[in-house]
Amino acid sequence: MKRVYNFSAGPAVLPEEVLKQAASEMLCYKNTGVSVMEMSHRSQDFKQIIEEAEADLRKLLNIPKNYKVLFLQGGATTQFSMIPMNLFRNKVADFINTGVWSKKAIAEAKRYGDVRVIASSEDDNFSYIPNLDNLKISENADYVHIVQNNTIYGTKYTKLPNTLGKTLVSDMSSNILSEPINVEDFGLIFAGAQKNIGPAGTTIVIIKEDLITDQYLEKTPIMYKYKIHADKGSMYNTPPTYGIYICGLVFKYLLNNGGVEAIHQKNLKKANLIYDYLDQSKMFFGSVRKEDRSIMNVTFNTNSVDLNNKFIKEAKKHRLVNIKGHRSVGGMRASIYNAMSYEGVKALVDFMQEFERENL
Amino acid sequence: MKRVYNFSAGPAVLPEEVLKQAASEMLCYKNTGVSVMEMSHRSQDFKQIIEEAEADLRKLLNIPKNYKVLFLQGGATTQFSMIPMNLFRNKVADFINTGVWSKKAIAEAKRYGDVRVIASSEDDNFSYIPNLDNLKISENADYVHIVQNNTIYGTKYTKLPNTLGKTLVSDMSSNILSEPINVEDFGLIFAGAQKNIGPAGTTIVIIKEDLITDQYLEKTPIMYKYKIHADKGSMYNTPPTYGIYICGLVFKYLLNNGGVEAIHQKNLKKANLIYDYLDQSKMFFGSVRKEDRSIMNVTFNTNSVDLNNKFIKEAKKHRLVNIKGHRSVGGMRASIYNAMSYEGVKALVDFMQEFERENL
Repeated sequence: MKRVYNFSAGPAVLPEEVLKQAASEMLCYKNTGVSVMEMSHRSQDFKQIIEEAEADLRKLLNIPKNYKVLFLQGGATTQFSMIPMNLFRNKVADFINTGVWSKKAIAEAKRYGDVRVIASSEDDNFSYIPNLDNLKISENADYVHIVQNNTIYGTKYTKLPNTLGKTLVSDMSSNILSEPINVEDFGLIFAGAQKNIGPAGTTIVIIKEDLITDQYLEKTPIMYKYKIHADKGSMYNTPPTYGIYICGLVFKYLLNNGGVEAIHQKNLKKANLIYDYLDQSKMFFGSVRKEDRSIMNVTFNTNSVDLNNKFIKEAKKHRLVNIKGHRSVGGMRASIYNAMSYEGVKALVDFMQEFERENL
Repeated sequence: MKRVYNFSAGPAVLPEEVLKQAASEMLCYKNTGVSVMEMSHRSQDFKQIIEEAEADLRKLLNIPKNYKVLFLQGGATTQFSMIPMNLFRNKVADFINTGVWSKKAIAEAKRYGDVRVIASSEDDNFSYIPNLDNLKISENADYVHIVQNNTIYGTKYTKLPNTLGKTLVSDMSSNILSEPINVEDFGLIFAGAQKNIGPAGTTIVIIKEDLITDQYLEKTPIMYKYKIHADKGSMYNTPPTYGIYICGLVFKYLLNNGGVEAIHQKNLKKANLIYDYLDQSKMFFGSVRKEDRSIMNVTFNTNSVDLNNKFIKEAKKHRLVNIKGHRSVGGMRASIYNAMSYEGVKALVDFMQEFERENL
């Protein structure tokens, strides 16, 4: 069976090289005689896997020494509770609302304190990033929370809000490692692995050391304490060992291919190919404001639901799969994460052209 | 590289058949053109995977309809907080203390209510299961918590405590699927997958429906609410998809090999082989009380630390690995979970005999 071009929003495509290596090592990792899945997390072999994964991620994102890297479980949703439980002092947080994942984080943080939405693009179904000038950052805010790339809508921040010195927390689930970042701009970065890194079930947290303290909201579960995980090198309990191994393979793959700078250039090339086509098409148009376009999730539409359905159906026959848009936006969405090849995007654009010719 | 006999206590050995199938499907699951790792959890293909996994587990354990099966994250440690947060009404729980994993669960539950240790084997380093006659079950206990098999010490319950009608909660992380159980004896069963089922990062919870309510302790994080997961079929957020797939393969493997009854017979044969040898050995002896011996984790010792070290070292040369005992018990431990073959246990016992002959 031939592989398809998989535009899934997440869990999403992984580098074929990584999958091949994982397959070849499935019964026996190096000279251990066991699968990584069968390895004690306390073994030297696994210790090396997790330490290398962390070191490689540090290299890729140039993570300063005063930041901890944690490999956790539970996805972004777990972070929605964990962040206030660990960071609340005044119990005040400012949020910029850019869609479903902001709203879920807001709803959860509200259960623990005073949440203020200081900007929102809800008025136009989150099709843009709100104006970041003159944000009313709360004087006593413990942090400011943003979702840097919005998977569902296809928007991304092109600059960061000025938080007036408050801790910036960023949900990078769908854009981590897609472009260079300055980690020091953030107090806490989190990302579910299942979009741009590895398998679902591993969550990466990059957190400034001075945010890791012994202070928590009352009744914070032990597994929700950053300090517990940080002190034990993400091994307070058994971590998702196989997921971490796959993340590590992806990190090595990126390093071997020029790092984040190189993948960013590739991502721009891919995104430009499809956006340039959309901007001149007589049938398809992009769903979000041009200046806020994501380079990871490309949302687009036609003026006809029937045409959309026909397009999605025929695309599938061309081995271009998972391009149906999220129900809250409609139309189409092509997620073109790091592991999506230029050839894949080219095949999609070629098919869009063909479809336009035949159906206009 | 040849595979070894892996006696790791967890993550632990998996059936070679399962690993082979996983390897063969790594780049392309059935006719999907994608890896299971790359599959949207909302796709029909994944829906089928998780539904089949649940159905197969229900068959294996004969789980009644009024019990929900949940695939969660965070390991047993997450359950230590989640259980009181969901089940506390009077905020009273009775615990039987049979080792480290009881103690961790006790410490966490204490943060949420009144915990009473109604029996303990701590006086003899947890080398036995306490007497279960005339337990002083608290009149207002919300539940009674036991650890049914104690991985570190090598003990197991051969009968269940009479809880006088109170909900019985059982940590079956290291014995789930090793022998038939009557699910109706329990209100809640939980097990980290990484010992007897699949990869670390997936936790199985089997819970009686009437324990799933809208009542929680205040500030219970959204991901800690059983009802949220139950209502969404374990897909409130992205579940550990690949882990669930591997669990599903293991369930099918068990069903294809006679189910839990058959694996129990095999487990008894394996355990008897090694215990029978221990009972007549002049050098090795079992570490726990005979009547409480685990059939999953066999702890044994000699009278000399030097001899132990020599044994562990030489065993490794014979491809018998991870048999060093837990530091809190010392000596040796052979974890002989479902996926450990009779041949593996035979190889270990043969080597023990040889070692005894040469070193006595």
